[in-house]
Amino acid sequence: MNKIKIFSPATVANVSCGFDCLGFAVNDLGDTMSFTKTKEKGVKISKIIGANLPYESDKNAASAVALAMLEKHPADFGLEIEIHKGYAPGSGLGSSAASSAGAAFAVNELLGKPFSQLELTKFAMFGEQIACGSPIADNVAAAIYGGFILVQQYSPLNVIKIPVPSELMLVAIHPQVQVKTKDARDVLPEEIPLKDAVTQWANVGGLISGLYANNYETIANSLKDIIVEPARKHLIPHFDEVKQTALDYGALSAGISGSGPTIFALCKGKETAKKVHQQIDELYQKTGIDYTMVLSKINTQGVTILESN
Amino acid sequence: MNKIKIFSPATVANVSCGFDCLGFAVNDLGDTMSFTKTKEKGVKISKIIGANLPYESDKNAASAVALAMLEKHPADFGLEIEIHKGYAPGSGLGSSAASSAGAAFAVNELLGKPFSQLELTKFAMFGEQIACGSPIADNVAAAIYGGFILVQQYSPLNVIKIPVPSELMLVAIHPQVQVKTKDARDVLPEEIPLKDAVTQWANVGGLISGLYANNYETIANSLKDIIVEPARKHLIPHFDEVKQTALDYGALSAGISGSGPTIFALCKGKETAKKVHQQIDELYQKTGIDYTMVLSKINTQGVTILESN
Repeated sequence: MNKIKIFSPATVANVSCGFDCLGFAVNDLGDTMSFTKTKEKGVKISKIIGANLPYESDKNAASAVALAMLEKHPADFGLEIEIHKGYAPGSGLGSSAASSAGAAFAVNELLGKPFSQLELTKFAMFGEQIACGSPIADNVAAAIYGGFILVQQYSPLNVIKIPVPSELMLVAIHPQVQVKTKDARDVLPEEIPLKDAVTQWANVGGLISGLYANNYETIANSLKDIIVEPARKHLIPHFDEVKQTALDYGALSAGISGSGPTIFALCKGKETAKKVHQQIDELYQKTGIDYTMVLSKINTQGVTILESN
Repeated sequence: MNKIKIFSPATVANVSCGFDCLGFAVNDLGDTMSFTKTKEKGVKISKIIGANLPYESDKNAASAVALAMLEKHPADFGLEIEIHKGYAPGSGLGSSAASSAGAAFAVNELLGKPFSQLELTKFAMFGEQIACGSPIADNVAAAIYGGFILVQQYSPLNVIKIPVPSELMLVAIHPQVQVKTKDARDVLPEEIPLKDAVTQWANVGGLISGLYANNYETIANSLKDIIVEPARKHLIPHFDEVKQTALDYGALSAGISGSGPTIFALCKGKETAKKVHQQIDELYQKTGIDYTMVLSKINTQGVTILESN
């Protein structure tokens, strides 16, 4: 294999009660990336379309991941990378994670698959470190494994892939406002009441159970975040109205994707998802704030190969 | 049906990371209770063997549950109850819950099963209120449903039954010391660091996943409690040594049952459980503290009928 073109999905992390440990991949939104072997060693970003990202190999998440992998598993070739961003960075949908996970997956293919999915997740976490300053696992793991993933622990890293009920659909709206990661972190409480923590972890248990048991009622009951969402939602314009609209039109629940500003809603079935999409669309049109929306299945495969030769 | 004799299982609540929401039932330890219809209305406790518990109908958990049920669903008969406690109250193994759940189940049978398992759980919670001062659900739900149960939320009450991997075995030791519930509550922090809460809820997610997926490694990785166990373990003599012994001899994990003093260990397979049982036994013999032990499968049925006519 000399060249590979892949699709790397957008991801929703901090899924309601599952703050900092639960994420899932989006089927119809993500980056397209091409990786070509070169005689000259080293890693070069040849093209970035759709976003203003660094071309320097050690500063771009994708090339930084590729460099780390080639250092760990030396090869007699170099790489040229083209990145077509399918959605905007800063959306809260794991933009740097898509690039990092895509690079980890593609380079592994070109190397003959020496690395496991868990190892690819670790390489991709290095990309997150480069792009965001911290090696967070939930977005990259969701992009690599696909479906719902639980980062059960960091040390040693343990990623668990959770089944996805087949009718589960995502509606997401990305208001074109900036939420700085630092601001989103700064509003979080350092300490929380034990009784709230118990409520939250009972909901995490319920959500995981609902996903395994295909029980949409349990999923809806459990998709609640009484800790992070109340602290962050004021950073996202019209959050409460969007969430209430989603619930009014049948969504299982809604919440903040990553650290925002994207708001996600999970729905059972395409018809409900379409209604929720339409109603949020109508609501947001009136706000005067620019936005994009997506309606998608949950991606269950993770990064996929579009072409290779 | 005029008479019914039932077995109501002991239960382990506060299962490591699942403080205040996760419990399971014990197959080989519990109360035996007989309920006989009487012409005279009202509920009378005729015999209590194995523990010093109140005979007054409104103060005994079992009769209080029966009275509440007969008030909700009036009948043309009264009841006489015999209780054979199979294990000591104050052990941390849900003694009052066994009586309460047993009463709820048995009276429901005698009434012709008008109530659902969830309703029986609510009646049994009233028994917990009478016996312990608060209507806690995790022990009684485990006794009624059997297996592992998650109390996902209290308002409205939602109990989820979680699958039990078939080789899962319990070893428990009950040191004959008193841990007052008030002391066990008083040592708990009111507030906890958000980052610890995240660690704990990721483990709850992992544990539920491991139970569904029959993955003993995930169960072992996730059966951790970094919040309540560190605060309470000093109330239980030799807790650390017992836990370490359990782990050294192959237990998946060990922790405090309920609010103690019973220490439970979960093991994969009978052979490992026997070894763990033996080693904890040898360890505790040297302490000079009286104790009892149990080695048991997980009860997956909840309260069961022994005889009826």
